[in-house]
Amino acid sequence: MNSKMKLPILYSQRSHQTRDLAISFLMQQGVENPNCISLAAGLVDPMTLPVGDALQAASRVLETEESGRLALQYGTTQGSAELREELLKHFASLEGSDVASLGIDETQLIATTGSQQLLSLVCETLFDPGDICLVAGPTYFVFAGNLAGVDARTVTIAADDDGMQPAALDHALEQIAAMQELHRVKLIYVVSYYDNPSGVCVSTERRKEIVDIAKKWSRDHRILVLEDAAYRELQYDGPVHSSLWSFDDSRDQVIYTQTFSKTFSPGIRVGFGVLPSDLVGPICDRKGNEDFGSANFNQHLIAETLRSGVYKTHLQKVRAGYQEKRDAMLAAADRYFSDIDGVTWVTPHGGLYVWMSLPESIATGFESPLFKQAVKNGVMYVPGELCYAGPAEDRPSHQMRLSYGVQTPDGINKGMERLAEAVKSVVR
Amino acid sequence: MNSKMKLPILYSQRSHQTRDLAISFLMQQGVENPNCISLAAGLVDPMTLPVGDALQAASRVLETEESGRLALQYGTTQGSAELREELLKHFASLEGSDVASLGIDETQLIATTGSQQLLSLVCETLFDPGDICLVAGPTYFVFAGNLAGVDARTVTIAADDDGMQPAALDHALEQIAAMQELHRVKLIYVVSYYDNPSGVCVSTERRKEIVDIAKKWSRDHRILVLEDAAYRELQYDGPVHSSLWSFDDSRDQVIYTQTFSKTFSPGIRVGFGVLPSDLVGPICDRKGNEDFGSANFNQHLIAETLRSGVYKTHLQKVRAGYQEKRDAMLAAADRYFSDIDGVTWVTPHGGLYVWMSLPESIATGFESPLFKQAVKNGVMYVPGELCYAGPAEDRPSHQMRLSYGVQTPDGINKGMERLAEAVKSVVR
Repeated sequence: MNSKMKLPILYSQRSHQTRDLAISFLMQQGVENPNCISLAAGLVDPMTLPVGDALQAASRVLETEESGRLALQYGTTQGSAELREELLKHFASLEGSDVASLGIDETQLIATTGSQQLLSLVCETLFDPGDICLVAGPTYFVFAGNLAGVDARTVTIAADDDGMQPAALDHALEQIAAMQELHRVKLIYVVSYYDNPSGVCVSTERRKEIVDIAKKWSRDHRILVLEDAAYRELQYDGPVHSSLWSFDDSRDQVIYTQTFSKTFSPGIRVGFGVLPSDLVGPICDRKGNEDFGSANFNQHLIAETLRSGVYKTHLQKVRAGYQEKRDAMLAAADRYFSDIDGVTWVTPHGGLYVWMSLPESIATGFESPLFKQAVKNGVMYVPGELCYAGPAEDRPSHQMRLSYGVQTPDGINKGMERLAEAVKSVVR
Repeated sequence: MNSKMKLPILYSQRSHQTRDLAISFLMQQGVENPNCISLAAGLVDPMTLPVGDALQAASRVLETEESGRLALQYGTTQGSAELREELLKHFASLEGSDVASLGIDETQLIATTGSQQLLSLVCETLFDPGDICLVAGPTYFVFAGNLAGVDARTVTIAADDDGMQPAALDHALEQIAAMQELHRVKLIYVVSYYDNPSGVCVSTERRKEIVDIAKKWSRDHRILVLEDAAYRELQYDGPVHSSLWSFDDSRDQVIYTQTFSKTFSPGIRVGFGVLPSDLVGPICDRKGNEDFGSANFNQHLIAETLRSGVYKTHLQKVRAGYQEKRDAMLAAADRYFSDIDGVTWVTPHGGLYVWMSLPESIATGFESPLFKQAVKNGVMYVPGELCYAGPAEDRPSHQMRLSYGVQTPDGINKGMERLAEAVKSVVR
């Protein structure tokens, strides 16, 4: 053996399947172009981060030796009982219900490292290579990466301003059944509130329909629905919706997940899942193998902010701030884009994103003239093609995800102006 | 479809492979027998948990809006740069070196949710079903579960009071090579300091030999060594050892992992890994898919305790407390077990465990007369057979892992007395 030569490491198959996160590329672009206004980053607004509230919660949790030790010791894999009790109350209040009427108890709740970990755990627990997941087009690109990581097949279901189209979902399942592949369908993934990236909210009617379709095609096994409600509490206007989960009377068809990353602090990183009772064991076994449970201290911090009402007060401020920024982005879209032919965008009632479509001939990818011109002009966005599952060649490539999360209203306006100039330079 | 009938969920193959953690059974036994003295739990002593120190660190991190926001925002998947810089200094000081002489920089460090997450990430990144891992017998039972979860084959290498036997390791690799299976060998796993469960520390001579054997059999690919140093800083007496990692001049053969769970707080749950440079990308990609990065706030807390010296001071207290308890357990072993024929135990110089062997005819498993009698007497232990990888029928079944982590010296003494009575009742 030549000692100068570095022998290769042989990686697992699934390691090769892991999709390189586009986030890295965008972050690098940001570093190399420090004056760039990023409308790409999904980070939360640093000004909303609850420094005082977090200190108050930490002080309460660590106030006595007894309460402090509880929080600093190992927790359980499923998560702090105290937190899960608070989560149950919180979830009930979001559903306009009370705990007793929910039809579940805290044994069906699990605390995770953000809702992202729940998404990953569900994929690991359900999918063998070649199993099928139905997703909206576009969909959350990190989840598409999770599906790629377990070598799942994805079937993209058309979506519009009311979210995933039930008729298209039903039709897709019919086709899959005709091909004798229904047994491979494990999951329907729905970002139900203010979708990342499209900003749309699934209409009430469709919520019920999607759950019913999952039930209808559950013949020999259960086709589960994974409801990703990460942005639920970032609502600014528009109608209030009950979850898809609430339309499942059996309480065993829908997995629900939510996070405190967007509404409180991503650095504290607490999310949770509401699970069908028979899924709790397998998910916890998997999580036990991965990390024994998420940081217990953080779970106590979030429980404290829920209990004290600090969370609720903070949320009001966060919502007001983002609403102002959403309005700034929509006004800027009107100001700078309405005179460009073929450009349309979705008006979101919550969340952090405006989804913009250009004429189909205008590519938006990292290698496109538009992206390069945009960076040159000092602005960045997430190319829409990253937000689809399935083979790259089948994806629409003329869209952009624009985030108003991080920039100030002024920064948003300037970024949109620069972006419109870039678009005009390639449309002409 | 009968709406009363619950259709099955179809789980992934790997979900079935996940080994049910014995911890759950032990916890349930604990709940059902509240007066039981648990010598089973691997929890840390609640009295060592740094309530005041944690509050001080939180207050510093959240002292200004600026520093607070940094900690409450998303971090990177690889972990806080600030923490990794502190970790590098800390690691260098453990190696009796300085940062400049280490031969690595902070880009080779990753922060994880305890060292457990690093163990899991390594398994996911390296192993396809049927790939081979060499482990000591006995070994850390949770890691054996990780290997089972990726359907790896395990080869158990004999160990004694100086740890894994290099001659046996070399011989095993020779046999594997003769069977043309060397290309399936991905990893050698070594708990190098005060092993869980055996309490032994790998001797200095063997550290070098194990690394050299890994290099020797790395013919067409690198056979990595995973050095689990979770208990390194819980040293009470005996010689100070440099890591196995330090004997790898190439800096690309050994993965090193350590945690602050045992020495500071498992509820804060920060561990770290030192990785060969070409393993950083694949491990981070995998972690990005699982959780985007561990809680950033906690990383800032640990960085603060390292920087301020609070960690070092706390560690002295923790060590002194555990040393007293280790002494109590060894004294109780002498007192109650030395007159039972065929009972031996290891004297640990650190860590949390005493490994006790009974005559081979005495089974110690959950279903054994001994375990049942022990619970009846009011004491619990971890059956030794859980601490081996591979098929259940091949494992020694006459050993016990006894932990002095949680109980007081009095509790330890009483627990050992009860256990000796149980052993005597089945030996006779």
